[in-house]
Amino acid sequence: MEFDEGRLFAYIDEHRDEYVELLRKYVRQPSLAGTGEGIEDMVRIVIDEFRARGLDVEVCETPGNPVIVATIPGESDKVFGCYHHYDVQPVDPLNEWVDEPFSAAIHDGRIWGRGVCDDKQGLVTHLCCIDAYQHVFGKLPCGVKFIVEGEEEIGSPNLEWFATHHADKLDCDGYNWEGGNRANDKGPLDICIGVKGLLYVEMTCRGAKMDSHSCNAAVVENPAWRLIWALNSIKGPDGRILIDGFYDGVQPVSDVDRAAFAQDGFDAEALKRYLGIDHFIGNAEGDELLAKLHYEPTFNICGFYSGYIAEGSKTVLPAYAQVKCDIRLVAGQDPDRIFSLLRKHLDDNGFADIELTYDSGCFAFRSDPKSDFVQACIRAAERVSGQKVTLNYMNPGTSPMHVFCLDKNIPAAMVGCMSEEANIHAPNEWVDMDDYIDGIKVCSAIMHELGGMR
Amino acid sequence: MEFDEGRLFAYIDEHRDEYVELLRKYVRQPSLAGTGEGIEDMVRIVIDEFRARGLDVEVCETPGNPVIVATIPGESDKVFGCYHHYDVQPVDPLNEWVDEPFSAAIHDGRIWGRGVCDDKQGLVTHLCCIDAYQHVFGKLPCGVKFIVEGEEEIGSPNLEWFATHHADKLDCDGYNWEGGNRANDKGPLDICIGVKGLLYVEMTCRGAKMDSHSCNAAVVENPAWRLIWALNSIKGPDGRILIDGFYDGVQPVSDVDRAAFAQDGFDAEALKRYLGIDHFIGNAEGDELLAKLHYEPTFNICGFYSGYIAEGSKTVLPAYAQVKCDIRLVAGQDPDRIFSLLRKHLDDNGFADIELTYDSGCFAFRSDPKSDFVQACIRAAERVSGQKVTLNYMNPGTSPMHVFCLDKNIPAAMVGCMSEEANIHAPNEWVDMDDYIDGIKVCSAIMHELGGMR
Repeated sequence: MEFDEGRLFAYIDEHRDEYVELLRKYVRQPSLAGTGEGIEDMVRIVIDEFRARGLDVEVCETPGNPVIVATIPGESDKVFGCYHHYDVQPVDPLNEWVDEPFSAAIHDGRIWGRGVCDDKQGLVTHLCCIDAYQHVFGKLPCGVKFIVEGEEEIGSPNLEWFATHHADKLDCDGYNWEGGNRANDKGPLDICIGVKGLLYVEMTCRGAKMDSHSCNAAVVENPAWRLIWALNSIKGPDGRILIDGFYDGVQPVSDVDRAAFAQDGFDAEALKRYLGIDHFIGNAEGDELLAKLHYEPTFNICGFYSGYIAEGSKTVLPAYAQVKCDIRLVAGQDPDRIFSLLRKHLDDNGFADIELTYDSGCFAFRSDPKSDFVQACIRAAERVSGQKVTLNYMNPGTSPMHVFCLDKNIPAAMVGCMSEEANIHAPNEWVDMDDYIDGIKVCSAIMHELGGMR
Repeated sequence: MEFDEGRLFAYIDEHRDEYVELLRKYVRQPSLAGTGEGIEDMVRIVIDEFRARGLDVEVCETPGNPVIVATIPGESDKVFGCYHHYDVQPVDPLNEWVDEPFSAAIHDGRIWGRGVCDDKQGLVTHLCCIDAYQHVFGKLPCGVKFIVEGEEEIGSPNLEWFATHHADKLDCDGYNWEGGNRANDKGPLDICIGVKGLLYVEMTCRGAKMDSHSCNAAVVENPAWRLIWALNSIKGPDGRILIDGFYDGVQPVSDVDRAAFAQDGFDAEALKRYLGIDHFIGNAEGDELLAKLHYEPTFNICGFYSGYIAEGSKTVLPAYAQVKCDIRLVAGQDPDRIFSLLRKHLDDNGFADIELTYDSGCFAFRSDPKSDFVQACIRAAERVSGQKVTLNYMNPGTSPMHVFCLDKNIPAAMVGCMSEEANIHAPNEWVDMDDYIDGIKVCSAIMHELGGMR
């Protein structure tokens, strides 16, 4: 049985324009889980493109957006799992976009648009792998299973529901999990095998029934001040989170994990340049920086609104104040428990009136670095790129790996060729077209490795 | 010399519709000092209506919007000053308005619109007084001088400039200062003879050059958190302002001022009902509540913005955070000095990077309650209303009284018939048409009293 990668990669290069156009088609279709905009049309496109390539498609309804499961057999019995999402982040702030977010504009060697990197390229990359194998060899080296959800960007609120109701559909030999990066300038691929968890909450403090004249500020409670005091009670300038029990179960960074920092691909200077900052919190660097980034839970403010925020001045006492927070969790932390602790913290500190709402929750998860799947990913990435990979044992971002992988002990890895500076979750998101084509080759090579082809 | 008020008031009643229409004309013209919208057209209307009634008009250019001075002589040499402003507050939040803000809609016995109460009715009321005197008697009992500025709602940034360059135009026997109220249900008029000062500032904390993925929150400074910590260092949950020197020069409430609380018209229960709150800060009531309201400086948050504030969730680390604050000042506090102290406070507390901008500043001021002018206002208000007035020695709001009155020792009083629940600075601002007509009568009576007519 022969799967000559030279022929496969030549085909991929020859069909570069076709594969770029296929990705642009996905980008042009808005798909915002937060508002529902475009979701139905997006689902239709995903289904149609799978079916056009002979995949068996099942649309699994959930209390939210449907999860699409698509499978196709291959030469070996091994099954390569691909977890992706067809929803995208909001486009706000719209005025900071150079191109219309859903125009899939092409310039500077890149495709620009909301979701082009996170995660439409991920989904389409694997579709192109299948397409190339089918055209060159008429078959695949291993089976492929896609599980594509539509609510990742709002915290995957129904993925647990899906996993519980469709546990039989989760089996595979390992997932390529959305979000694989490579270092700048076609540098080594960074393979990530773990992710932090997340608790996303909103807090609202209410005062008078409407914004009112601030002349009464001496006697009428200001909800913005109260929310500020509540937040300050949660985390002070030293960064320590002051919720009783918050750090329970959090382990110190192990020697094994610390040793892995030597292979870690995090580029501190590149991140500083990208963000335009001149230091990290506490001037952290080296292993201390990596330990914080990978293994420290966070309590981040995503947004704060109260009162008059337009141009100029208005002497107003706001009716309410609202904050959105994401709390990144590490191994040992349970989002539901943290939510209860936060509620108790507010109650115990004089802020029982502050409304706290649970937006979404997710556990941290990590794969076994020695598993066959992770090792196959490493071999594939190193062969195609010709460079030693870097390994990220615990990504500081969040993805619901645990939902598919924890109970069944299925390994997962994020393998891909995207830049870390691709402006995901920010204006002007982009994908380098060369990186995109390289990613198709790398993912094809994972199938080759997993299928046991030599 | 006869100025029979019966005839005058009958004329006013007969021309009620005409006077209502005149006010609606002013309301329909937007005049937003913050953006400049409609200012030029508003100035034209003000000038034309003055000239149509024979006033001598001088348009005094300033670095900002022009100040309009209009004068007309009367039987006595006394001159009744009228301070008003032709600009209005912003309309935000627009979606909370029942009627279009500049439609001057009429229903429920009221005229609705942005600025109808604050302060277009004030200006038009005195215009109607002149109109009525001219039609009934062909002349006025005293001279009248209008000084009408166009930047009150943004803190009167050029009124000092005007007062310095046109000091000769400020003389008069006393100002009816915009903002006079009466108690609910046609209750007694509340005459206010003093106002708090104001310092309006913005603080901005900047982090990364764009909103970025919150996965970096463990190592990248969050400007929203830093601004919250900075604010918390300025004022804690006990309400005490912690800026070194902030309270320097602030006197305890005097026995005289405390004694005046007996005549104070503040209706605590009405304010609670209006705002939909069930208690004041610290459950203050009685004289303690009045002392705080009238004599305590405040540090109020008018608005706070950072990051993602639209519907749903977005895991973002904001690029910047911004807060708008109004700081109400009492006698003994200098806005420029407080600004310097605030800057020093930020520097001394590790927040030197937070940008602090000065929006506007204003001293507190109080008139002599025994002055002829204040006494004339009291007599006029009590005669027309048939009720004993209440006296407010120090309004918790702000108006730039000191600019005209401090150096020349000119008394000022706020006399009018507006409701305190008129939604000024808030959506759905209104004026009761009966109150408006009553106000024309009261102000006519002040002219009568000031002119020494019997």
